[in-house]
Amino acid sequence: MSDHKGFTLWMTGLSGSGKSTITEVLIDEFEDRDIPLEVLDGDVVRENLSKGLGFSKEDRDINISRIAFVADLLSRNGVPVITAAISPYRETRDHARQIHEGNSTFVEVFVATSLEDCEARDTKGLYAKARSGEIKEFTGISDPYEEPLDPELRIETAGKTPEESAQDVLDYLEAEGLISAK
Amino acid sequence: MSDHKGFTLWMTGLSGSGKSTITEVLIDEFEDRDIPLEVLDGDVVRENLSKGLGFSKEDRDINISRIAFVADLLSRNGVPVITAAISPYRETRDHARQIHEGNSTFVEVFVATSLEDCEARDTKGLYAKARSGEIKEFTGISDPYEEPLDPELRIETAGKTPEESAQDVLDYLEAEGLISAK
Repeated sequence: MSDHKGFTLWMTGLSGSGKSTITEVLIDEFEDRDIPLEVLDGDVVRENLSKGLGFSKEDRDINISRIAFVADLLSRNGVPVITAAISPYRETRDHARQIHEGNSTFVEVFVATSLEDCEARDTKGLYAKARSGEIKEFTGISDPYEEPLDPELRIETAGKTPEESAQDVLDYLEAEGLISAK
Repeated sequence: MSDHKGFTLWMTGLSGSGKSTITEVLIDEFEDRDIPLEVLDGDVVRENLSKGLGFSKEDRDINISRIAFVADLLSRNGVPVITAAISPYRETRDHARQIHEGNSTFVEVFVATSLEDCEARDTKGLYAKARSGEIKEFTGISDPYEEPLDPELRIETAGKTPEESAQDVLDYLEAEGLISAK
């Protein structure tokens, strides 16, 4: 097994920004390198920890706190974790960071795809529904997305493949000594 | 660090049966042996994962499922975990066991203190409140407790100190090769 430390890679970005796609590439890469990894994406967590919660600010905050609680439990025990929830509120992300403080390494990764690009692709058709009002409380349209001010890593996805974006993450993790170089 | 595997020690028993007291002894013992341990007791989980849930069967089941989800995440990554929630329903405990299947070792520990003994001690005064009707849905009084039929370990606490009961658990874990002998 490759050498690694426990850490939480906290991916944040708009719906459709590429968080899940980049995570998929990272899952394969970690597997290739024989590094353990747990992925807490929005859907897994809503199913197993947060069923019944909605998308109000309060419910989103509770959901994010639960993800952070579990991510910290894992990462402080040496397990690499990726979370991939939109996590639109700065204060809530900072709270997630605080939960990790003194326990393990928190890496905020801002997947900085612009709203225009996310909406132009609209792979799941969610932006169209948000514009028509069919979906309420949609981040970037009817709900705020507060960009990270000082993330550990900012990924500019424009003109890049998911593999290239994932490589940015791997380079960071290697440079920080969180995973060993390939 | 001592040798160990990941496992979930699922303590079940009535309120006041001694789950938490035995767990306290185990926490010290694991620390002495330099074995990592995460404890998911009822209060920690209700605070961090299940705020807002009540004590109906449905809410208890959701709470237990969340504990099992997190315990499995940890134990399958090599972390020893103790859960210490009442977990009164057999079907729900079996569901917790299923979540672990194929991932890590699930050890059901029945802390078999009788209702009479728990009520006679009533350290938190909860049984008195349950009898008077001040607390509704109280396991053993107004709510069922379904004893495990075939737990990995059944601890008879009558006439034993918490240290002796904890020793029963340690003996089992050593015998199963889940922790190395002292």
